[in-house]
Amino acid sequence: MAKKVTILGSTGSIGTQTLDVIANDRELYEVEGLSAGSNIALLLEQVDQFKPKRVCVASAADAAEVKLHVPAGTEVVHGEQGLIDLAAGGQSDVVVTAIVGSRGLGATLAAIEAGKSVGLANKETLVTAGHLVMSLAKQRSVSIMPIDSEHSAIFQCLNGENPRSIKRITLTASGGSFRDRSRDELAGVTVEQALKHPNWSMGAKITIDSATMANKGLEVIEARWLYDIGYDDIDVVIHPESIIHSYVEFEDHSVMAQLGLPDMRVPIQYALTYPERRPTPTGRLDLVKQGALHFREMDEQRYPMMRLAYAAGRAGGTATTAFNAANEVAVARFLQGEIGFLDIDRIVETVLEKHAPIANPDQATIADADAWARMTSSSA
Amino acid sequence: MAKKVTILGSTGSIGTQTLDVIANDRELYEVEGLSAGSNIALLLEQVDQFKPKRVCVASAADAAEVKLHVPAGTEVVHGEQGLIDLAAGGQSDVVVTAIVGSRGLGATLAAIEAGKSVGLANKETLVTAGHLVMSLAKQRSVSIMPIDSEHSAIFQCLNGENPRSIKRITLTASGGSFRDRSRDELAGVTVEQALKHPNWSMGAKITIDSATMANKGLEVIEARWLYDIGYDDIDVVIHPESIIHSYVEFEDHSVMAQLGLPDMRVPIQYALTYPERRPTPTGRLDLVKQGALHFREMDEQRYPMMRLAYAAGRAGGTATTAFNAANEVAVARFLQGEIGFLDIDRIVETVLEKHAPIANPDQATIADADAWARMTSSSA
Repeated sequence: MAKKVTILGSTGSIGTQTLDVIANDRELYEVEGLSAGSNIALLLEQVDQFKPKRVCVASAADAAEVKLHVPAGTEVVHGEQGLIDLAAGGQSDVVVTAIVGSRGLGATLAAIEAGKSVGLANKETLVTAGHLVMSLAKQRSVSIMPIDSEHSAIFQCLNGENPRSIKRITLTASGGSFRDRSRDELAGVTVEQALKHPNWSMGAKITIDSATMANKGLEVIEARWLYDIGYDDIDVVIHPESIIHSYVEFEDHSVMAQLGLPDMRVPIQYALTYPERRPTPTGRLDLVKQGALHFREMDEQRYPMMRLAYAAGRAGGTATTAFNAANEVAVARFLQGEIGFLDIDRIVETVLEKHAPIANPDQATIADADAWARMTSSSA
Repeated sequence: MAKKVTILGSTGSIGTQTLDVIANDRELYEVEGLSAGSNIALLLEQVDQFKPKRVCVASAADAAEVKLHVPAGTEVVHGEQGLIDLAAGGQSDVVVTAIVGSRGLGATLAAIEAGKSVGLANKETLVTAGHLVMSLAKQRSVSIMPIDSEHSAIFQCLNGENPRSIKRITLTASGGSFRDRSRDELAGVTVEQALKHPNWSMGAKITIDSATMANKGLEVIEARWLYDIGYDDIDVVIHPESIIHSYVEFEDHSVMAQLGLPDMRVPIQYALTYPERRPTPTGRLDLVKQGALHFREMDEQRYPMMRLAYAAGRAGGTATTAFNAANEVAVARFLQGEIGFLDIDRIVETVLEKHAPIANPDQATIADADAWARMTSSSA
């Protein structure tokens, strides 16, 4: 029987690659629902190709426009409530949360509440509300399948293993577009330079987050929740080739690693087909051709965002929400040419210094902290 | 309840390390039986420390001598039949076959027949009789746990995976003591030079087999049986650091690898504790300290033994027995200073050229092929 998939954020980088995975193994899947933000043209192409039962767009005006172009019987919803209905409703088996930023939380919780598996590509969900998401998933016996390459790697390394025997999880980081520059050489870099990631083709926000290491910081916080492991046991190393996607050391000092060419379609598909694997149209890793894999220390002087992420994670409560929101605003301001590259982590640090974390926040408290951090970082 | 362990070949490199693993987690194990060859003094020390119920030595004379020194109630057996009785008898849960060379076959089959799990460190067992061993193990529902680092790595990579989704198994090879020499530079190398392995501390036979690549050839043939996979899907790459112990590519092009510092106690313990892991007193891998991992192509011109092993494996039947026996004799002759290093693969090639393989051999046919190959290689 075909697996029914809903994709929140189908026109973004992860969304389009998820549809690519589905297109490659068409009889295996049915597309139940798609949501998009501003890229209505691409959404309509996707509707034409994948024939979802329901689509969600941002506004009522967009919804009215989209209705003119979709087949009769395709339900069109909109806005935050529309997204929640899309995530929780219909017959979907799995909801892929490929929305960037903290908007994905409500819809993700609604999907879990409705008993749907989640393919989690929205980092901010666990970063801001890991305690809510993981306890609800446990309560509803729902699988949270990580879709980013690092956590998918860890997930694969833990296949068949007893989680109690984990000694340390190490996330690898490419080092981003500026990895060969010193901290001093970062002043005055342009948006165009920052958007050139050496290994991965990704969206703008995550590419900047790779350059500042905020992306890895978010992943560290995610790992804490996904694998129920303390911050002392989560490590980050710089691995410029991005071939080893992450690895786990067990208590016998055996290390399991997952490797591959950088291609998000592998972790995306794994989240959809687990525990099975299926062929992918991706390239094959040839370590001889690769020649060498390199590793260097994560330097928190060079990447202050790493230190800030661990500090926010250890502070807990709403601190990680503040970290994430401040970073989102700062990156947006950088992309708009409003601030320099080095201002990004300066702003995050300033916001975290001002923030008084509230422990075990509920959704409303998270939203308040998020709004406060956004406001504070807009003028920091 | 303590796991009862019998070790065939307890005074060799793998045998002593197995006892080291047991000593490190003493309450987890009982030593049921030990067998030794010529090193009676060490055997007696081991008896004193681990108090096995039964010991086996090579000859009646050795047995008489040993009886004078072991506690009353310790049974002492000897010879080939004694080894078989040790392997198949008593209360042992697992039999570690750490004997080097083709002598381990009868005892291994007897252990499987008696329903005991096997920790297989004796490569030649599968190389000469993989078809007999694996079918008997299947019939008796007995686990064959590989103890060498490469196959333990593959075994760990397959944890929780569907074997049908394997695309390719790659065994890593350090390249041995002469990896930085060209083929021309190998003429006239001494036994002492050949015995200096760059990464692993092992017995003499296996160290020479690493330098000629016969060891990797034997492992390729073993992998064919352990994982029921064709020779076209087993690859070998040179990885000088011996940190990635081997890896598996799956059909989605995801690659799982097992890594660690070179220390046989990790795969030995894993074979004893699987599916659990336990702490080991081994060093921890630090990839940052390691800095880089390198990979280069296996060159069959440089290592003709690799080509010969694949050819013998593909020929099947008794060809792998001939390969193994000829190699054993040639290595022994090299270690005795009788022939040069380059004569080792010349002799194996000569014997394989003369050998007419018999398909699906039984034990007697294997023994005949073994005897023939030894005789032929003694004067080749």
